[in-house]
Amino acid sequence: MRLSKALIPTLKETPSEAQIASHRLMLRAGLIRQMASGIYAWLPAGLRVLTKIADIVREEQDRIGAQEVLMPTIQSADLWRESGRYEAYGKEMLRITDRHDRELLYGPTNEEMITAIVRDNIKSYRDLPQMPYHIQWKFRDEVRPRFGVLRGREFLMKDGYSFDLDFDGAFRTYKSIMLAYMRTFQRIGITAIPMRADTGAIGGDLSHEFHILAPTGESGVFFDAAFETGDALGATDPDAFYEQMTTTYAATDEKHDESAWAQIPPERKREGRGIEVGQIFYFGTKYSKAMNFAVTGADGQKFYPEMGSYGIGVSRLVGAIIEARHDEAGIIWPQAIAPWRAAILNLRQGDATTDTLCEQLYQALGADALYDDREERAGAKFAEADLMGLPWQLIVGPKGAAKGMVELKHRATGERFELPADEALAKVRA
Amino acid sequence: MRLSKALIPTLKETPSEAQIASHRLMLRAGLIRQMASGIYAWLPAGLRVLTKIADIVREEQDRIGAQEVLMPTIQSADLWRESGRYEAYGKEMLRITDRHDRELLYGPTNEEMITAIVRDNIKSYRDLPQMPYHIQWKFRDEVRPRFGVLRGREFLMKDGYSFDLDFDGAFRTYKSIMLAYMRTFQRIGITAIPMRADTGAIGGDLSHEFHILAPTGESGVFFDAAFETGDALGATDPDAFYEQMTTTYAATDEKHDESAWAQIPPERKREGRGIEVGQIFYFGTKYSKAMNFAVTGADGQKFYPEMGSYGIGVSRLVGAIIEARHDEAGIIWPQAIAPWRAAILNLRQGDATTDTLCEQLYQALGADALYDDREERAGAKFAEADLMGLPWQLIVGPKGAAKGMVELKHRATGERFELPADEALAKVRA
Repeated sequence: MRLSKALIPTLKETPSEAQIASHRLMLRAGLIRQMASGIYAWLPAGLRVLTKIADIVREEQDRIGAQEVLMPTIQSADLWRESGRYEAYGKEMLRITDRHDRELLYGPTNEEMITAIVRDNIKSYRDLPQMPYHIQWKFRDEVRPRFGVLRGREFLMKDGYSFDLDFDGAFRTYKSIMLAYMRTFQRIGITAIPMRADTGAIGGDLSHEFHILAPTGESGVFFDAAFETGDALGATDPDAFYEQMTTTYAATDEKHDESAWAQIPPERKREGRGIEVGQIFYFGTKYSKAMNFAVTGADGQKFYPEMGSYGIGVSRLVGAIIEARHDEAGIIWPQAIAPWRAAILNLRQGDATTDTLCEQLYQALGADALYDDREERAGAKFAEADLMGLPWQLIVGPKGAAKGMVELKHRATGERFELPADEALAKVRA
Repeated sequence: MRLSKALIPTLKETPSEAQIASHRLMLRAGLIRQMASGIYAWLPAGLRVLTKIADIVREEQDRIGAQEVLMPTIQSADLWRESGRYEAYGKEMLRITDRHDRELLYGPTNEEMITAIVRDNIKSYRDLPQMPYHIQWKFRDEVRPRFGVLRGREFLMKDGYSFDLDFDGAFRTYKSIMLAYMRTFQRIGITAIPMRADTGAIGGDLSHEFHILAPTGESGVFFDAAFETGDALGATDPDAFYEQMTTTYAATDEKHDESAWAQIPPERKREGRGIEVGQIFYFGTKYSKAMNFAVTGADGQKFYPEMGSYGIGVSRLVGAIIEARHDEAGIIWPQAIAPWRAAILNLRQGDATTDTLCEQLYQALGADALYDDREERAGAKFAEADLMGLPWQLIVGPKGAAKGMVELKHRATGERFELPADEALAKVRA
């Protein structure tokens, strides 16, 4: 994309409403704009990140046999009366009355709806297990929305649900979801740690939260250094993986156990701060019973399927990743979800040799490049490229261009290389 | 996908609430389920169609330089007070009050919001033109939702907006959008015809609707046979294309002009019925003036950008395509948007030779195949394959499998071929 034509309104000043780095940087880098309290529009650069994260989430869900569906944002209050949560949910639920005075709501989560769908369409144990998920906008009417997309009201979530024959099946599903989540975070390029959690409003017996490490995280976290190596992608056996994940020490300050912590060798102790980006729940027959979803078993007897639910905050991840990866100058995107792989900085717009080389680089990289073709000072282009945080910067000035040379800057490390254009391209594409 | 594991709940009976073919078939083929009046969940097969349509729409928008954004579903009432449409919009607008008694609404369209975004982020004529679009769920509180996704309340729309320097630029944009729309419909595999339309609640001077031909369409349409050839993809010049589209006769019964119609040679006259699947508007400075969006021109003077808006009903298209393409037995998907390219019908599940050949076909086609591996009678499998309407059926029985032969059926024509498995695969992939 050519920056001169793009709707990427970067800001020099720090917007006064932004209290934390990710909110500030998302506004300054032109990723989002606030439309109402806790409600954001995603501009082209921000949407590209959101879409790339969603695509990775989707691939890892599909890989474990989950099936994508898409439930509507608006739900009937009657569904929530079946589970008993309509009254219980409180003021965070955005309640709506339509023109015929029917009670609706903007879904904050979908346990009730998916249970109704599976109940009405599945009759036999032979049709289980089922693992539907969707990636859809949710609304929670936070009393005080803040921190940009980290605590917004309208937010994008991947929420998945599982229906199993029995506890063993449900527990196996829970483990495979944990593995899928760890693969997802690793592919995105961040370190995430699963931690035992309370079940809260969803209910149930077993839950883990996934925290990514960021100095501005809301929770203090204590963990074994083993989590830093992140070899989740290699695991093939969910049982062994789960065993390893849950026997290696990790806890938020709320659940921190000083006596267990004392057992960890000092060189393996890590403390930091974490941002929650996902949570998984096993809750057995809580919803299948409440909503009367019974299935005929192999023995002809009816039984209630065992359920769980599994969420990743897709829009929240964008903010959380920036909290984990930024410096004074701006964002430092992991390559897998950067809006573009490289920025091309034309330092002398209008100079024929420089323009020609920049155009060649732009043609070569295509959709992977953001070309800063504006008539701006070099200093402004450097600052905006650092702010926007693409993994690579291809810096082209008239002197180098005359010799076919470019300066390649790696945003994360600050390393700079003087290279022939084709070698620079090869490094960017690697 | 293996049908035995898939959440594709087909129905033998015709659901009583469905009055028209597409609604009936979308329920029977397991594409959607109704969650509340006019509000649907998309199950895996339906979502695949919806996603494929959205992807084609997106590619053709990007190709003409439009930029994808994503605006939230919930909007502030104050935005709509700026344009004067908050009171005017009437009962189709779903109005919402949040916990702090602020007035919100579920966006039925986004002229106000996009004008505010561009206004707050663009200051100079040098930043124009801009052509943002998004593909997002909308809500219109229809008094009597009906016909499934054809007149639902929560629906998926691609809505795009343009901001130009002057009328000439805006008119050129309008023409390029018409060309992009015709390419979109042609790639999807349907015949669409642009027809001069009234501007309604959006306002403005110039509008076209796009109708696709279907015997159950809501409007009578009269058109020149030239529209049947559909060579839109070949056009490169929007001016010439627009001239051709708008001087060739086409009108809904509301706008039908008997005297102009009389001039058409009888052999070129076509009459039919149409379903509206898109509409485009040029409305000049209606919103930029009302919302005080002025930009500094090259001469230092402020001016109001010239605007248009452009919609394609993405979820509506799914229903409309089925209205245009079905028979007694079920849906006949165009290849480009079929949920899968081929169904593999195993006529003797459990027979080793048959199972082996089916698995080989399934591995070869991968994500492009739906494998009916259920223990069902052949007759039921034939009926469901016709109902679901994938372009090809690979029918595998024990006798053929022993010789490495399959029967290949083309759903649209009913043609059947006895072929060696590899030749059948080659035909499916072609």
